[in-house]
This record gives sequence, C-alpha cells and structure tokens, in this order.
Amino acid sequence: MWGIIATWRMALEGIEKASEILKKSGDAGDAIEIAIREVEDFPYYKSVGYGGLPNEDMEVELDAAFMDGDTLDIGAVAAIKDFANPISIARRLSKEKVNNLLVGSGAEKYAHKEGFERKNMLTKRAKIHYYNRIDEIKEQQIKPYSGHDTVGMVCLDLHGKMTSATSTSGLFMKKAGRVGDSPISGSGFYVDSKVGGASATGLGEDVMKGCLAYEIVRLMKDGIHPQEACETAVNMFDLELKQRRGQAGDMSLIAMNNKGQWGVATNIENFSFVVATATEKATVYITKNINGKCIHEAASQEWLDNYMTARKKTLKRNSDL
Amino acid sequence: MWGIIATWRMALEGIEKASEILKKSGDAGDAIEIAIREVEDFPYYKSVGYGGLPNEDMEVELDAAFMDGDTLDIGAVAAIKDFANPISIARRLSKEKVNNLLVGSGAEKYAHKEGFERKNMLTKRAKIHYYNRIDEIKEQQIKPYSGHDTVGMVCLDLHGKMTSATSTSGLFMKKAGRVGDSPISGSGFYVDSKVGGASATGLGEDVMKGCLAYEIVRLMKDGIHPQEACETAVNMFDLELKQRRGQAGDMSLIAMNNKGQWGVATNIENFSFVVATATEKATVYITKNINGKCIHEAASQEWLDNYMTARKKTLKRNSDL
Repeated sequence: MWGIIATWRMALEGIEKASEILKKSGDAGDAIEIAIREVEDFPYYKSVGYGGLPNEDMEVELDAAFMDGDTLDIGAVAAIKDFANPISIARRLSKEKVNNLLVGSGAEKYAHKEGFERKNMLTKRAKIHYYNRIDEIKEQQIKPYSGHDTVGMVCLDLHGKMTSATSTSGLFMKKAGRVGDSPISGSGFYVDSKVGGASATGLGEDVMKGCLAYEIVRLMKDGIHPQEACETAVNMFDLELKQRRGQAGDMSLIAMNNKGQWGVATNIENFSFVVATATEKATVYITKNINGKCIHEAASQEWLDNYMTARKKTLKRNSDL
Repeated sequence: MWGIIATWRMALEGIEKASEILKKSGDAGDAIEIAIREVEDFPYYKSVGYGGLPNEDMEVELDAAFMDGDTLDIGAVAAIKDFANPISIARRLSKEKVNNLLVGSGAEKYAHKEGFERKNMLTKRAKIHYYNRIDEIKEQQIKPYSGHDTVGMVCLDLHGKMTSATSTSGLFMKKAGRVGDSPISGSGFYVDSKVGGASATGLGEDVMKGCLAYEIVRLMKDGIHPQEACETAVNMFDLELKQRRGQAGDMSLIAMNNKGQWGVATNIENFSFVVATATEKATVYITKNINGKCIHEAASQEWLDNYMTARKKTLKRNSDL
C-alpha cells in the first residue's frame, strides 16, 4: 500500500506528482518533498512559500519541517527569509546529527552555506494584500490576524516508510520572528512508521497547546482508526479550549496510518484536503464537522473551478477601487 | 498542597526562593518565574542565562518558555541574544493573544519594545570555555557539542494552579539559530493543572523526537504516578531510539502531578534535581537508572560542597597552562 494525504486543496498538484513517484516504489521522503515544493513554488497560494503573505514588517518569514518516520529524524526551519524552498532546507537539516531546528538568520546562514536557492519571496500580489490589510485595519478596526493555511502532509511508501512535512508563511501580519505550530514536532507534525503520522493547520498558538499531531499518532498507536483518532483529538481539545478560554482557534488535522487508512477532523466549516492512495486517485474532499462527526464529500467540478478562479482573480489596491 | 520540582542542582537557590512564595499562598506563575530568574542571573551556571556557553560564533543565544496549566497559555523565546531574563520575556509573551513564540531578532525587537533589560550575556569565563574548546577540537578531534543542562521546572500552588518553565543557553558550540527542545511545547515542557506537568533536559534533538513532556503528562492523565510515568516514557523512548538509531542522547525528565506527587527519570548517570513541597524542604537528589528503576538519593553535604567549588574553580586558557 502507498498513500499520501495533505491539508487544503492547494496540495492537489503536489499530491499528483508525489503519487507518480509512490506508485513506482519511490521513497516517501522524495515524494513528500516534491509535493511540498510544488505548493511552495506556486505564486497564487498565499500562505505557503513564494507569494506567501508577509509579517507586520512586510517581510515573508517562512517555516517548514520534515520528519522521517523510520529513524524519527527531524529537520526544521523557522522564520527564514528569502529562500525558495524551505522544505528542502528542512529535509537537509534532518540529516544532521544535531542542530536540526534552525531559526532566523542562523537558518539563512546554514541554507546559504549549503547552496540553497535564494529568492525574494515577496510577490507584487502579496504586497497588495499587505497594503489592503493595513487600510482595513485603519478603517474598520478589524483584527489584523487571519489566514493560516499551512500545507501539511503525511506519506506512506511501498517500502512501509512514512514521512510527514509542513510548509507555511504563518499568520498574515504576524510579529517578526513569530513561529506557529508548523515547525514544531508533535504539534504541526509527527510520524512514526510503526504507527502512522498526522499534521495540522489552523491557529498554531492553539494547536501547540494540545500537541495535536502527537496526540493523534498516540491514539492510532492504541489501535484507533485515523478517522476516529482525528475526531477524538480535535473535538476533545476544541471543547477543552472553549471551557478554559471561552474560545478555540481554527484547528484541522489530517492523519494516515501505516496501512494507508486515513482520517481528517476540523472545527471549522468547509476544510478542504487531498488524498491519494494505491486504490484512490488524487481527490479533493471538503469536510464538515456535524455534531462531532466529520463528513467528507468529494469536491464538485464547480467548486474546483471556482477555487482556482478565486486564487487568480485580479487583485487591486483598495484605494484604487 | 504546594510543590516545585526542577532539573539539576543549579535550581536549588531558585527553588528555595519559590518555596517562600508558595507556602504563603503565592502564585505558581510568580514562583516559577522567580526561581528561573535566579538560575539565569547566577554567572557560574554555564548552561542558563548570564554566563551561558556561546554558540560556534561565540554568541550566547538563549531559549526559554513558560506555560500556565490553567489556561494552557504558552509563551516562549528562542535564539534571543543579550537580554537578562528570557524567562520573563517568555512569561510576558504567554499573555499575548497570538504571537506567543518569537525567535531571533523578532524576539529581541519585542523584548526591547516591552522594556526588558538588555545585558551582554557573554562572560569572561564563558569566553575562556569557548577558546579552550576551540583548542580541544583542533588538538584532540573531539566532538564539538556537549553540555545541555537546561533548567526545567514544574510548580503547583495552594490554589491548585500549575505552571512549567524552562531556560537554557542550549548546546555549547551549537550553530547560530539552533533551537533545542526547551522552548518547544510538549517536548521541553508541558503542564495541565487538571493533571500535572513535566519538563526535560538533555539532548533536545532527541527529546523532540519523542515529545517526552507531553507523553508523561498523558500517562499521568491515565492515573499513573509521576515516577512510573517518567520511567515508562524515558525507558521506552531510550530503547526505541537505540533500536532505530543505534544510540540515544541524554534525556532526563522531571514531573509533578496536581496532588504534589513527583517523579524523575533519566538515561544518564548521576542526574541531579531539586524538590520542595509542603511536606519536604528544598532537597537536592541524585538519581541513577538501575535496570529501568530510577533510584533517588539525597545529595551528601560533601557532594554539595564539591559542586559549588567545581563551579567557581579558577578557569584558565589551555594555552596558559
């Protein structure tokens, strides 16, 4: 069995590429890296890699992580600027003996010495979003933070090796140096080839409070199906946060076990995700949490068409309207 | 019941101060912050705060975290330079709605704006250690990395509130920007007032692979005594790493539940820790793992005297000897 599951529709093109590798007995490390790079490179996805939304200083700071479920090797970067593919730097770091998580200018120094591609990751489109948001904050007193659509994946190859990976530009308008759950082991991602893996998207500050990726893997280790593991973890922690804090941030989790069975749970409306396995071609699903049960429905052609149209819609400065 | 437990002998003076607060019905947040600051401020502890050992560029980069077990609020800084008390910055960050984990120059910018005390954290003594190590690496081909004695604590106050906190200068000679487990939720620390808390010291890169603090809290949630929870988590994960990777880094974990019962486990020789509770004055213990059981013995006066003498011993450049 092989399989790969990822957060959000934006993962589709990457998942299709990874599927080609996995069905030919390719490596789960190679497949997941290629899948994530595809998302990082596409300029119209505004929460990952090139075209990602900037922080409050209009700088695009990126986080990414890679974990190998055989060895438990982890590599991650956080708050790194102006490198084309954070996921590839993270994967390279996973092969170091120590110094596996590097942040800020130290991460950039490492990436430079290792010869990774420099790229100004701030696009014209992201700048328009930035300036519009500045105007909106001034005019409408809205809260500055929104948008935290991390791409997170779990992958199983025909050799039984599993991997997990994440990549994100983090919270739009975040403070410089802010790091969410994505590069944090056990929160944004976790994988153990003996069991399975999980990955998160949502409000990193809240996901970290519950170590949700690790929690789901631990539930699967007790023999629980990935779908039930995701629902249990998300529903229980959502309730826990609401009881203690009056509210819970967005949290959506994907998981796959080492048999290729998968599960997804969310506490938001219409969370989209992508799955491909040996028995199912790459499919985009939309999921809803109805009284604690997450119901997944394949996205219609109309939904898929609208999605890409919305991504590529001409963007104008508010002040020009 | 009140109680506080901490990694390493160096926590003693801080634990004594915290005990005074806790016995007078003080807050677990205030007590743990004061205890950690005491360790950060003492120049002869070379792995935390002022006097901490520098990275490969001879810069002291510090990590710290604070967690409130009532609200699950987390605040943390990583790779921050030249601020006197990282723990106080971490605690302040725990009160922000988002942007709770800040790294590198972004963390410094926040700390500056919030008015925290600037301090050049590189001491003359730390510089001597640095230059000696450079010589040793050249002459003896020894591995550059050693020393990762994080101070980590778990605290329970008379109101039933629990907190956890960590502070460290990280791996001696680490790469710039390297972050270990200390500021990472679920790995270096975790606490839930409904259950208990745990904190880690050791090789952060390996602790992160097992999310050990969260694992111990989860075991305690199932009703397991902190001592058994620590031993189970450390022994099982030590074995797991050795089976998969041929070796396991140093890992020592402390825990306390919300009844003030505590536990400690380690995979190294002679791990020291400090405990104080309503029924036990601040005591330094040394623990050994004998076939999976961790045996704690109160430190002798001789051991305690030798400890401080060794810390304060005159330090010379190798080249002067």
